[in-house]
Amino acid sequence: MKQKVAVLGAGSWGTALAKTLVENGHDVMIWGNHEKQIDEINEHHTNTHYLPDVKLPEALKGTLDLAACIADADAVLFVVPTKATREVAAKFAAVCQNKPVVIHASKGLEKDTHKRISVVLAEEIPADKRQDIVVLSGPSHAEEVAVRDVTTITAASENLASAEYVQSLFSNEYFRIYTNQDVIGVETGAALKNIIALGAGALHGLGFGDNAKAAIMTRGLAEISRLGVAMGADPLTFIGLSGVGDLIVTCTSVHSRNWRAGDLLGKGHKLDGILENMGMIVEGVSTTRAAYELAQEMGIEMPITQAIYDVLYNDVDVDDAIRAIMLRDYKSEQEFTFN
Amino acid sequence: MKQKVAVLGAGSWGTALAKTLVENGHDVMIWGNHEKQIDEINEHHTNTHYLPDVKLPEALKGTLDLAACIADADAVLFVVPTKATREVAAKFAAVCQNKPVVIHASKGLEKDTHKRISVVLAEEIPADKRQDIVVLSGPSHAEEVAVRDVTTITAASENLASAEYVQSLFSNEYFRIYTNQDVIGVETGAALKNIIALGAGALHGLGFGDNAKAAIMTRGLAEISRLGVAMGADPLTFIGLSGVGDLIVTCTSVHSRNWRAGDLLGKGHKLDGILENMGMIVEGVSTTRAAYELAQEMGIEMPITQAIYDVLYNDVDVDDAIRAIMLRDYKSEQEFTFN
Repeated sequence: MKQKVAVLGAGSWGTALAKTLVENGHDVMIWGNHEKQIDEINEHHTNTHYLPDVKLPEALKGTLDLAACIADADAVLFVVPTKATREVAAKFAAVCQNKPVVIHASKGLEKDTHKRISVVLAEEIPADKRQDIVVLSGPSHAEEVAVRDVTTITAASENLASAEYVQSLFSNEYFRIYTNQDVIGVETGAALKNIIALGAGALHGLGFGDNAKAAIMTRGLAEISRLGVAMGADPLTFIGLSGVGDLIVTCTSVHSRNWRAGDLLGKGHKLDGILENMGMIVEGVSTTRAAYELAQEMGIEMPITQAIYDVLYNDVDVDDAIRAIMLRDYKSEQEFTFN
Repeated sequence: MKQKVAVLGAGSWGTALAKTLVENGHDVMIWGNHEKQIDEINEHHTNTHYLPDVKLPEALKGTLDLAACIADADAVLFVVPTKATREVAAKFAAVCQNKPVVIHASKGLEKDTHKRISVVLAEEIPADKRQDIVVLSGPSHAEEVAVRDVTTITAASENLASAEYVQSLFSNEYFRIYTNQDVIGVETGAALKNIIALGAGALHGLGFGDNAKAAIMTRGLAEISRLGVAMGADPLTFIGLSGVGDLIVTCTSVHSRNWRAGDLLGKGHKLDGILENMGMIVEGVSTTRAAYELAQEMGIEMPITQAIYDVLYNDVDVDDAIRAIMLRDYKSEQEFTFN
C-alpha cells in the first residue's frame, strides 16, 4: 500500500533510500538544510555532490521545512550524521502532529554518552509522537543502491510487525530486507565494525597479506560481539548482515574511509595529518575511543581495540601494537555456549 | 617440549606446516609419493612446484616410506587431498606401531558418502592405533605462512586437551592457534565455504558490486550454518576462523580457484571448459553437489546452493539463477535462538 514517507537527511544514503522508496511507489519527501542542494533535487533531479551521475525520480520532492516534510507521514526515516541525531529528533518532536513509524539508518554511538542511536531517538521523541523505532543496517554502499545493484540489509525492531512493515516498504527486485528483533546487536555491530576497518587497513598498510586480513576481521568480530553481548546483544546477530556483512564491505572496499585511514596509519602517517588530508569524518576514530571506554567500564577484553586505541591516542608504534596481539596467551575461540 | 611429527602430504599446505613445525623446534619428517619432489626437499631444501622461492629448513627431512615417516611419531598430520584420505589412512593403520595424536588439515567432504574427514580417519584408524583426532582449519594461504606472514587458525577436537596440545605444537610469533571443541562445525564450515566462493565469483563475473558480494557471503554463511547445525554443529562456530575467517580469504582473494571458477561462470563460460582450462580440481563443484544432496535428504533450505547447483548441473542461466534468489519470500535473518 502506498505510504507517505519523510526522509530526514539528504546525503548519499538518505538520497539513495529516498530514490528506492519512490521506485517502490511511495510518496516521498526528503529534508535537508542546504538550500542549493534542495533546489537541485527539485529542479534538476540530481544530488551531484553525494551521488554523481545518478538521475533521481521527478516524484522525489526536497524541502528545507522539517514540519512540512513530516506532515501526515506514515513513516519518518532519520539518515542524519550520528552527531546531529539528537538535535534533529528534538526538532521533529517539537513539530510532529501525528504518530509515524520512526526508522533510522545511521551508524555509530553518541559521543560521550556512548548511547545507541535508537536510544537517543527514544529519549527525544515521546511515545505519543511515534510508533516503534526500526533500525535499518547492513552492507550497502549508497552509490550501488542508487544504480539498482543487488543489496541486502536488515530491518530491526523489538516488535516484529514493525520490522516487517519496514521490510515491505523497501523490498524490491534489487533491495532485499531481512527482519531481525535484536536491535542492540544490529546497532552495536554497525557502530563497532569501523574499529576493525581501521585495523584491517593498518595491516594492509604494514604489508601483511590475506591471512592477516582474515585474522583481524574474524578476531575483531569476536571482540565486538563480546562487547555487544555485554551490552545485551545476541551473539548470533554478529553473523548477520549488520555484523559480518557490513564488516566485509567496510574492510574489503578501498572506498571505505575507515579502511583508508587505517592503511595510512600502517604506512606510518600520523593521525592528525591523515584526518586533515582526508577532510572527512573518520567515524572509527571516535568509535575506537567509545569502545575502549565501554570495555574499560564493563571489564571486557578487547585486544584489537586496545591496540588501535594505543596507536591512535597513545602514540604506540603500529607494528609493535599488531605484533603484541600475536603474542598474547593462547585462547579458545568459543566464548558463548549455544543450546 | 620437542615432539616428533610426521607430515603426510608434501603439497603447499603440508610443506608450509612442516616448515612451521621445524621452526618451532620439533623433529619433523614429511612423506610424499613423488621421488623427485622428496629428493628436492632433501637435497636442495626447496619444493618449488608448490612453494616457489621458499627456502625450507635443512632439518626438514622428506621420505617416500610411510612406515619410516610415522615411526615413533608423537603426532601425525594428514594433509593429503580429500579423495586420498581414506586410502592413506588405511596404509597408516596397517603400519602404525605406536599411538600418535592424529591431526588433519584437509577441507572437504568425502565423495558419495558426504562424510567429514575426521569421520573417515576414525573409520580407517582403529582407536588402539591413535590418540584423539584434531582438525586444523582456518584462513591460511600456504604461501603466506611459508614466508611467516601473520596467520590465525583453529585446532578443533572434542577433547580440549588434545586441541591444546596441537595449539602448543604450532603456535609461534606468526602463527596463532585458537582451540575449539566443535569438530562438526569446523569441518562443515571449511568444506561448504567453497560453494559460496563459487557464488561470490559468479556475482563478480556478472558485474555486481560490493553490496552483492557481502550479501552472498553473509546469506551464504547463513545457509551453510543451517546445514551445519542440522549435521550437529554449533551455529556460533561459523562466526569463527574456520567459518567467516576462511570464507573471507576464499571470497576476496583472486588466488582462490573456486572464486576464479565462479567468476568465469558469471562471465558466461561453461563448466567443462572452465575445469579443462584451469587444469586443477575446483573443490566447490563437487561440494555443491554434496551439499545439495545433503540438503535434499535433510529437508534444509539452501537457496544459494540450489542456484549454484542449477547453474553447474542443470544448465540454468547464471543471471536468472541469481535474480531468482532476490525475489524469494521475505525472511527474518534470525533462525537460531541463543540463551
